[in-house]
Amino acid sequence: MPERLSIADVWSALEDLRARRPLVHNITNYVAMSVSANVLLALGASPAMVHAVEEVEDFAAISDALVINIGTLSPPWVAAMGKAVERMRTAGKPWVLDPVGCGATPYRTQVAAELAVLSPAIIRGNAAEIMSLAGESGAGKGVDSVSRADDATHAAAALAARTGAVVAVTGEVDYVCDGAGCTAIYGGHALMPLSTALGCSLSAITAAFAAVRPPREAAMAALTVFAAAGSAAAARCRGPGHLPAELCDALHLMTPAMLAEHVRIAAAPAG
Amino acid sequence: MPERLSIADVWSALEDLRARRPLVHNITNYVAMSVSANVLLALGASPAMVHAVEEVEDFAAISDALVINIGTLSPPWVAAMGKAVERMRTAGKPWVLDPVGCGATPYRTQVAAELAVLSPAIIRGNAAEIMSLAGESGAGKGVDSVSRADDATHAAAALAARTGAVVAVTGEVDYVCDGAGCTAIYGGHALMPLSTALGCSLSAITAAFAAVRPPREAAMAALTVFAAAGSAAAARCRGPGHLPAELCDALHLMTPAMLAEHVRIAAAPAG
Amino acid sequence: MPERLSIADVWSALEDLRARRPLVHNITNYVAMSVSANVLLALGASPAMVHAVEEVEDFAAISDALVINIGTLSPPWVAAMGKAVERMRTAGKPWVLDPVGCGATPYRTQVAAELAVLSPAIIRGNAAEIMSLAGESGAGKGVDSVSRADDATHAAAALAARTGAVVAVTGEVDYVCDGAGCTAIYGGHALMPLSTALGCSLSAITAAFAAVRPPREAAMAALTVFAAAGSAAAARCRGPGHLPAELCDALHLMTPAMLAEHVRIAAAPAG
Repeated sequence: MPERLSIADVWSALEDLRARRPLVHNITNYVAMSVSANVLLALGASPAMVHAVEEVEDFAAISDALVINIGTLSPPWVAAMGKAVERMRTAGKPWVLDPVGCGATPYRTQVAAELAVLSPAIIRGNAAEIMSLAGESGAGKGVDSVSRADDATHAAAALAARTGAVVAVTGEVDYVCDGAGCTAIYGGHALMPLSTALGCSLSAITAAFAAVRPPREAAMAALTVFAAAGSAAAARCRGPGHLPAELCDALHLMTPAMLAEHVRIAAAPAG
Repeated sequence: MPERLSIADVWSALEDLRARRPLVHNITNYVAMSVSANVLLALGASPAMVHAVEEVEDFAAISDALVINIGTLSPPWVAAMGKAVERMRTAGKPWVLDPVGCGATPYRTQVAAELAVLSPAIIRGNAAEIMSLAGESGAGKGVDSVSRADDATHAAAALAARTGAVVAVTGEVDYVCDGAGCTAIYGGHALMPLSTALGCSLSAITAAFAAVRPPREAAMAALTVFAAAGSAAAARCRGPGHLPAELCDALHLMTPAMLAEHVRIAAAPAG
Repeated sequence: MPERLSIADVWSALEDLRARRPLVHNITNYVAMSVSANVLLALGASPAMVHAVEEVEDFAAISDALVINIGTLSPPWVAAMGKAVERMRTAGKPWVLDPVGCGATPYRTQVAAELAVLSPAIIRGNAAEIMSLAGESGAGKGVDSVSRADDATHAAAALAARTGAVVAVTGEVDYVCDGAGCTAIYGGHALMPLSTALGCSLSAITAAFAAVRPPREAAMAALTVFAAAGSAAAARCRGPGHLPAELCDALHLMTPAMLAEHVRIAAAPAG
């Protein structure tokens, strides 16, 4: 079982992130771009969306971390993803894979599989995506999962062992898995899946944390901060409409006390 | 004159939609993607934005309804629209056409005309778009209409008769027309045209209702729920800024009483 | 030193803009599209996002102003930018250049340089972008500037002299420069850089004002209205999350008193 971060560790990672203000290169989907940028800014990172093959390598060269999200993929974007990833690998800088909708179509599943073996530091997805990417028959519905994250921890651990990536599978409970096992993060709110692209935004901040912490710590810190912000934000909402704005405010105003109040980090129940 | 839905009928359609949670495939414009996804989620549907020719057919095969919106069209997207539509037609599943800006440029007008004859279940647009698509000289200004929906009911009925689609023309008053005539829906709010892509989002939820009701009922239910949500949302706003968020909250919190309070469904005045 | 607008001049420009409701053609980046459209609508303009080479010239022909923003550029979009710009020039209608991230990659820097010599009425950017476009070594970090606008007034004036454009460089203090010198606009709020694409939205409304005023007056009016709206909006926020919505409300509810309370227009300190 992997070591668990304390709330103090998470707070320290956030302080370091804010001090460094990492430049996060996003090659992400059209739906997620605006909310991801706002979430990264509220957290304390510097986001940029750059996708043309003519410049992705040059931009990757100046970035501190990269997130690749295949939500609205097409061949020119996939070509750019490959080039940006290669540049990050060569430079020893971290990149995060969000295999949106993996399992929904053969094209999407194939692209996700090809990216997964290019040494991502972290892979983050919902249960259906992670199960599909691990080669299990996941239960997806378009880009939404109808499986519970709890059911995907075995697949996540297997995927981690095969790819060398830390695998974060998020849902009602979130899990961070590597080859040695999974840690559970309890937090968030039921309104979160009703606001689009919040999972994509979580992948983006995972990349930001990966600029200042090793992959497993980065994933745990990102999921913890996001779960706390989501929970605090939802407490101020009567529906999903204002959730992205409240989430940004909660990230901007985050304190150690908010982390302690809204999230619990624990060993994952034996699967 | 087509039969009119009662508020109870609309509520029943919404309950069925929420129980089924239809997967709505969106090939829509860049501006509308995020708000359409949020509106669909708040309503109770499951949205996905998928546009690559490499996967649109596979995705259409698992979707319950499709919305085609030409707001930011380009040839690769138009090619994908044709493929996705064909797959829905073959499978007997509904698709909705939103001919954004039809009449503004020859390219846009031609693409809209080519799509309109591919058996959409419902066509939804503003007055200028529907008049242009019907072959009348509409009065558009870019993508905004400067004609009133009232002036477009004749064009809408003619377009419905020619294409076999139910035609929804929305504005200060909304109309649902088929070959037999038009039904009027009174609701909404003057702030709504000041918030971008709400019409596009209405087309998206029309597709969601088309997954659980025949086209005319689906269009009436969608316009009624949206008008009620828009009116309830605007009552909480002092400007257009928070309208999309409030609209999502209103959709999420919708009740039969809100429908009854904010909307009136009536026979259209004889044109 | 250029003449400065009074608050009454700015208000008059806004009243004229609202009366004319200019159609603003946006060829902009994916991140900025939705917020730019909402900001233009709240201001009183009519926005449209149209980018396909098959229709950009036809759309430019019916537009009152054009904004070109290279935030998420790629070759097909750059080709469309060139065509749209050429049509506006031929027709004697204004266009605005936002050279997002100029200096971050060679591709981006080259495209910005090629556009800058095509007679934009106004160029608006942050300090790093303007310094890079002027040929100085700017200090950018991805698409964010780490230079202060104060440091860029010399570059802005030089760029204005070379291109014939009015150059607006925005930051903690905003400056409007032409070959004769710079005017400073004091307003805005420290939360504004924490909400994505607000600078892009400012470029969009600069184009809207350019439809009703000569370039220097248009730039000053746009920056003044935006700074006032941003300051008024931020006063209602506890973080950046609700800032775009509050900004739209402030634009929609703008009054001469709000302008006078939140902004000061002054001669730029001698550089």
